[in-house]
Amino acid sequence: MASIQEMAARCCNWGRWGENDVLGTLNFIDEAKRVDAAALVRTGEVFSLAQAFDSEGPQNGWRRRTNPVHTMTDTGTDAEYGSQGFPHGFGGADDVISMPLQCSTQWDGLGHIFDRGRAWNGRRAGEVVTSAGDSVTGIETAASRIVGRGVLLDLGRALADGLGLERAELPDGFAITPENLEAAIERQGASAEVGRGDILVVRTGQYTRARREGWGHYAGGPAPGLSFACAPWLHEREVAAVATDTWGFEVRPNEFNGAFQPLHQVAIPNMGLFVGEMWNPDSWAEHSADDGRWDAMLCAQPLPITGAVGSPLNPLAIK
Amino acid sequence: MASIQEMAARCCNWGRWGENDVLGTLNFIDEAKRVDAAALVRTGEVFSLAQAFDSEGPQNGWRRRTNPVHTMTDTGTDAEYGSQGFPHGFGGADDVISMPLQCSTQWDGLGHIFDRGRAWNGRRAGEVVTSAGDSVTGIETAASRIVGRGVLLDLGRALADGLGLERAELPDGFAITPENLEAAIERQGASAEVGRGDILVVRTGQYTRARREGWGHYAGGPAPGLSFACAPWLHEREVAAVATDTWGFEVRPNEFNGAFQPLHQVAIPNMGLFVGEMWNPDSWAEHSADDGRWDAMLCAQPLPITGAVGSPLNPLAIK
Amino acid sequence: MASIQEMAARCCNWGRWGENDVLGTLNFIDEAKRVDAAALVRTGEVFSLAQAFDSEGPQNGWRRRTNPVHTMTDTGTDAEYGSQGFPHGFGGADDVISMPLQCSTQWDGLGHIFDRGRAWNGRRAGEVVTSAGDSVTGIETAASRIVGRGVLLDLGRALADGLGLERAELPDGFAITPENLEAAIERQGASAEVGRGDILVVRTGQYTRARREGWGHYAGGPAPGLSFACAPWLHEREVAAVATDTWGFEVRPNEFNGAFQPLHQVAIPNMGLFVGEMWNPDSWAEHSADDGRWDAMLCAQPLPITGAVGSPLNPLAIK
Amino acid sequence: MASIQEMAARCCNWGRWGENDVLGTLNFIDEAKRVDAAALVRTGEVFSLAQAFDSEGPQNGWRRRTNPVHTMTDTGTDAEYGSQGFPHGFGGADDVISMPLQCSTQWDGLGHIFDRGRAWNGRRAGEVVTSAGDSVTGIETAASRIVGRGVLLDLGRALADGLGLERAELPDGFAITPENLEAAIERQGASAEVGRGDILVVRTGQYTRARREGWGHYAGGPAPGLSFACAPWLHEREVAAVATDTWGFEVRPNEFNGAFQPLHQVAIPNMGLFVGEMWNPDSWAEHSADDGRWDAMLCAQPLPITGAVGSPLNPLAIK
Repeated sequence: MASIQEMAARCCNWGRWGENDVLGTLNFIDEAKRVDAAALVRTGEVFSLAQAFDSEGPQNGWRRRTNPVHTMTDTGTDAEYGSQGFPHGFGGADDVISMPLQCSTQWDGLGHIFDRGRAWNGRRAGEVVTSAGDSVTGIETAASRIVGRGVLLDLGRALADGLGLERAELPDGFAITPENLEAAIERQGASAEVGRGDILVVRTGQYTRARREGWGHYAGGPAPGLSFACAPWLHEREVAAVATDTWGFEVRPNEFNGAFQPLHQVAIPNMGLFVGEMWNPDSWAEHSADDGRWDAMLCAQPLPITGAVGSPLNPLAIK
Repeated sequence: MASIQEMAARCCNWGRWGENDVLGTLNFIDEAKRVDAAALVRTGEVFSLAQAFDSEGPQNGWRRRTNPVHTMTDTGTDAEYGSQGFPHGFGGADDVISMPLQCSTQWDGLGHIFDRGRAWNGRRAGEVVTSAGDSVTGIETAASRIVGRGVLLDLGRALADGLGLERAELPDGFAITPENLEAAIERQGASAEVGRGDILVVRTGQYTRARREGWGHYAGGPAPGLSFACAPWLHEREVAAVATDTWGFEVRPNEFNGAFQPLHQVAIPNMGLFVGEMWNPDSWAEHSADDGRWDAMLCAQPLPITGAVGSPLNPLAIK
Repeated sequence: MASIQEMAARCCNWGRWGENDVLGTLNFIDEAKRVDAAALVRTGEVFSLAQAFDSEGPQNGWRRRTNPVHTMTDTGTDAEYGSQGFPHGFGGADDVISMPLQCSTQWDGLGHIFDRGRAWNGRRAGEVVTSAGDSVTGIETAASRIVGRGVLLDLGRALADGLGLERAELPDGFAITPENLEAAIERQGASAEVGRGDILVVRTGQYTRARREGWGHYAGGPAPGLSFACAPWLHEREVAAVATDTWGFEVRPNEFNGAFQPLHQVAIPNMGLFVGEMWNPDSWAEHSADDGRWDAMLCAQPLPITGAVGSPLNPLAIK
Repeated sequence: MASIQEMAARCCNWGRWGENDVLGTLNFIDEAKRVDAAALVRTGEVFSLAQAFDSEGPQNGWRRRTNPVHTMTDTGTDAEYGSQGFPHGFGGADDVISMPLQCSTQWDGLGHIFDRGRAWNGRRAGEVVTSAGDSVTGIETAASRIVGRGVLLDLGRALADGLGLERAELPDGFAITPENLEAAIERQGASAEVGRGDILVVRTGQYTRARREGWGHYAGGPAPGLSFACAPWLHEREVAAVATDTWGFEVRPNEFNGAFQPLHQVAIPNMGLFVGEMWNPDSWAEHSADDGRWDAMLCAQPLPITGAVGSPLNPLAIK
C-alpha cells in the first residue's frame, strides 16, 4: 500500500493538462506526431492487432465478464426459405451483439480504475462513474485521438535467448522490468526507440501460447507482464499509451502479496495512461522480425460508446 | 423487378476475384493505394466520422434494431462506497453493451443483403448466413483491409445554391444522381476526384438536420440518398466502398413503387460493394469546406466480430 | 416533501417483522391464506395476467428501459437447410433474450425504490443495492411466497356509469381514491372484499385502451392510477401486494407539482409493499363481470434472478 | 436412426388434437384436473422448483448458452451519492438481464426440437421457427395452461438402497427405465401414481450432487436421466409434461453410439410433450420424504415471450 502510494505520487500527472482534462497521456500525441507517423507508411501493408470477438474467447464470467454473444435477427436460410417478407427477391441478414466492453481487444478508459476513491486528474470516483456511465472521461472523448506512431517491443523474442526459452514466449509470472524493455530496444534497433507520444505495444508471447495450447487461465490467471517497476519508465518516456497481448497488462500473480493490479492503480488514475489489453501483435511481430522495422503508423481508435469506461477496438499497424 | 435484375447483371462482379473471394470491392484497395493515402496526411488533424453509440440514438425497434443499451457492472459510486472488495484502495468500473451491429455508424458486410437467394459471388444465401452467423464473408475477413484514400463529396453543400436551399442539407426524398455526383466533384475540385480503390463518403446533410431538429424518422423514413441510377457510376469508377450520413445509403422512399432498397440489392450481393451507413461527416466537411481539400487518409476498420454481417466502427479521416 | 415524509411515517412497517426481514407485506400471506385461496378454485379456468414480452411493447428507452430483444441462436430454417450438424435427423431451435426486468408485466422488488437514501426496513440504499445487484432483498427471496388470494377491483367498470364513461376505462390522469376503491368493492360484492394478505389487482382500463388505440405514452405518460391518498387504506387493509394494468401503479401526472412517484416512495421502502405493474387483467375481468366472482387463487411467483430489484412474471388467476 | 423412427411412429400424436393444435400433451390437462389439483393444497406450504438465475450457473457457452448476465441501470450507491436527479428524496434501482432462455430452470417449447425437418404436429421446421422466432407454437401459447397435478418421483431415493448408493443420487450415465419408474411409484405409494394430465417431476439427485461438489459438466456432460425406452411409458400414461433436475432430461451419454438426445427427438416433435429441465426438486423431495405425500398442485407457467421456443420459469409445488 505504501509502495503504491509512493509510486502514485512519483508518477502523478494530475493538473498537468489543466483541471478539466479528460485525455491524460493522449495529450502527448500532437499533430506533428501524426504526420511523422504517416510517414512510416512505406509499403502499405496493414496488420490487425485485434483478437477475435466471439464465443470462443477466454472469458470465464469473472465479475460478469463473458465472451461476446452474437446472434442473428435475419439469416440467409430464412431468405432462401422465403419467410422474410421483402419484395422483388430482396433478402437480408442482420445481427445483434451482447458483450462486456473488456471481453476482447480493448482500451481501458480513464474511468476504468480508481485509486483510493479518486479517478484521473483527482476527481472523485463517484462523480465520474455512476451506473449511468462515465459522464466525464467516457471513451467517446478519445474518439479522434489515438492515431500515431506505434512501437512494438517483442519481449518474447528479445529475451528468448538470454532466458534459454525454446519459443519466443515469456513464461507466466515473468515480470518485465525497465531493463528488459531497454534490452529489447537495443536488440531491435533504432526503429524501436520509445519516446514522447508513442504508443507502445509489448508482445510477451502469452497469446501465441494460448492460441496453440488453449486459453487455460488466460483471463485473470498467471501471465507475463509489466513489472510494477515500469511505472516511472513509462512516465519518464511520456508514452501516450501501452498495450500488451495479455489479459491484464501487468505481471500476474502481482508482485506484492495480496495485491490486485497495483500498476493499473498507478497508471490509470494517477498517470492518466491509456492501457490496451488482449491485443494480438503476432502478425505484426512476424513481419517486423523479418524486415527489422519495429515502428508503424498505428490507428487505434475506440468505438465512441457514450460514457463507456473502455472500448473494444481493432487496432491497425500500417507499414 | 426487371430493372433490378438488369442492373444487377450490368454491375455484377461475381467471379472477378476468383470463386473463393470474400472481399468484393475491397480488392480495389491495394498497398500502393495505402501508401498514397498516407501521403495525404499533412497536418495531422483527425476527424472521427462516427455518430454516438448510446441510448439516445434514432433506432425505433424495426426488425429488432434498437439503440445500444450500455450498463455498468462496477461503478465509481460503488468504489467510493467501499463495496467492491478490492485491496489497497483499488477501485474499478466495468461495463457491458447490448446492441444491434447496425444501430449506429456501421459497415454492411457482404453477407448483409441477398438477391433472389444469392449472396456475394453467387453463393447460396443459406450456405453463407445461418443463425450461427456468416461463415463465409463474416466481417472479420475485412479486419485489416479498409485503410485507404477517402473522398468526401458534400452533396448538401454542392447542390445548395442550385436548389435554392437555405442550408447545406438535401431534402428528404432527394435522389442523388450520377450527374449530381459529377457536379459535386467539379465544384469541389481535383482533391475530390473519385477513382479505383477510393472510399467515397457522401454527405447529404440529413444527419446535420436530425441533430438540430430531432431524429424524427431518420431510421427508415424519408431521406435523401443515392439514386438507383448510381449503381453503374459506382461500378465503373471501381470505388472500394461508399458511405453516407443517412440510415440507408439510398434515397427513401425508394424510386420504384413497392420496392425496398433496390440499390442495396444490386450493390452488395452483385457488386460486392461495402456500404457504410449512419456516418457523421460533419466535422470533416466543415474543415474541407474551409481548406478546399476533400480527400484524406481514411481508417475505417470494422470490429472483427466473427461471423457478423456488419460492424459498428469509428471511421477516422486524417489530413 | 413534507407530505411524503408524514405519509411515510404514518404507514411505516420498519421493524414490524424483525430487523432482518426481506419480505415486507408478503409476510401477510400465511399458509392458511393459501389453503383458503386454493379453495377458490372451483371450475379450473386459468387467466394469464401477463402482457406480452416482445419488441412490440410500450417501452421507449427511458432510463434504458427498452422492449425485450429476443433472438434465435438456432432455427427451423437452419434445421431444414441441414446446416446444424446434428446426427440422425435431429434439429433444434434455441433462443436468447435481452430485456429490462421492468419491461413488461413485473413485480417491483423491495430494493427498487428508496426514500431519502433508505431502503426497506431502514437499511441504507447503498448497503442494499450496488452495481452487483440487491444483496439483501433480491427478488429471489420471494421465490416461493406469492401464492394466495387475489382480488380484482375493476375500477374502470365500477366507475364508468358514475363518471359517464362510454367505455369501462378510466381517463388518463384520473386519481383513484380510497372512496373509489370502497365503491368498487360495494358494487362488486362480497367476493371483492379486500383484507389481510390479499393480493389486490386494480384494473383501470388503460391497458385495454392502449391495445385498441396504440401504446402512445403508456410507458411513463399520463395514466389513471392510485391516488397518493390510498397509502393508508392499503396499509390498514394489510394487503400483501397491489398490481395495476398501468406502467406506474400510481396516477400520472403525479398529484404534487414537480413530484415523481410519491406513492412508490411511501409504499416500497416504508411499507415494504410489493407493487405489480403492467399487468393484464382483461380476460379475468371479463370473466368476473360475467359470473360475479371477483376473487381467485393467484399464483404470481417471480423469476428468482439473484439480486434483482424486480422480476418479469406471468401471474395466473385460477377460478 | 431406425430405432428413432420406429419409436417416433409408435408414440406419435400428430393430428390427435386437430391440425391446428399448438399445445400437444398439455391438452391432457383439463379444467377438472385443475380443480382436483387445487384440492391437493392442504397445508399451504410452497416449494419453489427453480434453480437460481445468475452468473454462477453451470452454462459453459455451448451453442452460445451462457449464464445470465444481470446488470443494474440504477443503484442504491448512486441514490445515496445523490446522482440520480430525482426530487424529494426519491431514489431508485433498476436492472437488465441478458440470458439464453434455456440457461436455467426452463420449459422446452414445442418448437425447440425437430425430427427430420418436422416440428410438432407434422409442420415443416422452417415454417415454424425462423430467426424471427416460433410463429406457430411460441411459448406464449401455453401462458395459461400449465397448472395441474404434479407428481414427484424421487428416483435417487427410490433406487438408492437397491443400487447400494451412499446418497440418494443416481450416478452419471444411469439410464432410468420404465421399470425404475414403476418401482419408484410402488415404493412412494398411492400419492405417486402417474396418469393422464399429470406433470411428472423426476428427481435423479444430480443437481444435489452438483451443488455440493461443483457444477463440473452438469451442462451437457454425463448425467443420469430417462432411458430412450421411457417414451412409450410416457406416451401411454398420457402425462402432460415431464421435468427433471438435469440439464438434458434424458440419460447422457445417450444410449446409442453417436446419437444426440434421441428421446427429445421422439418426445417433443412427435409426442408434443412439454419437457422441463434444470429444475430443482430438492426441497419438495425432502418434505415429501417426510410426510409421504408425493403429489401437489403445480403451477409451472412459462413467461409469455412471443415466439420463444422455451422459457425460464419458477415452478411452484403447493401442498
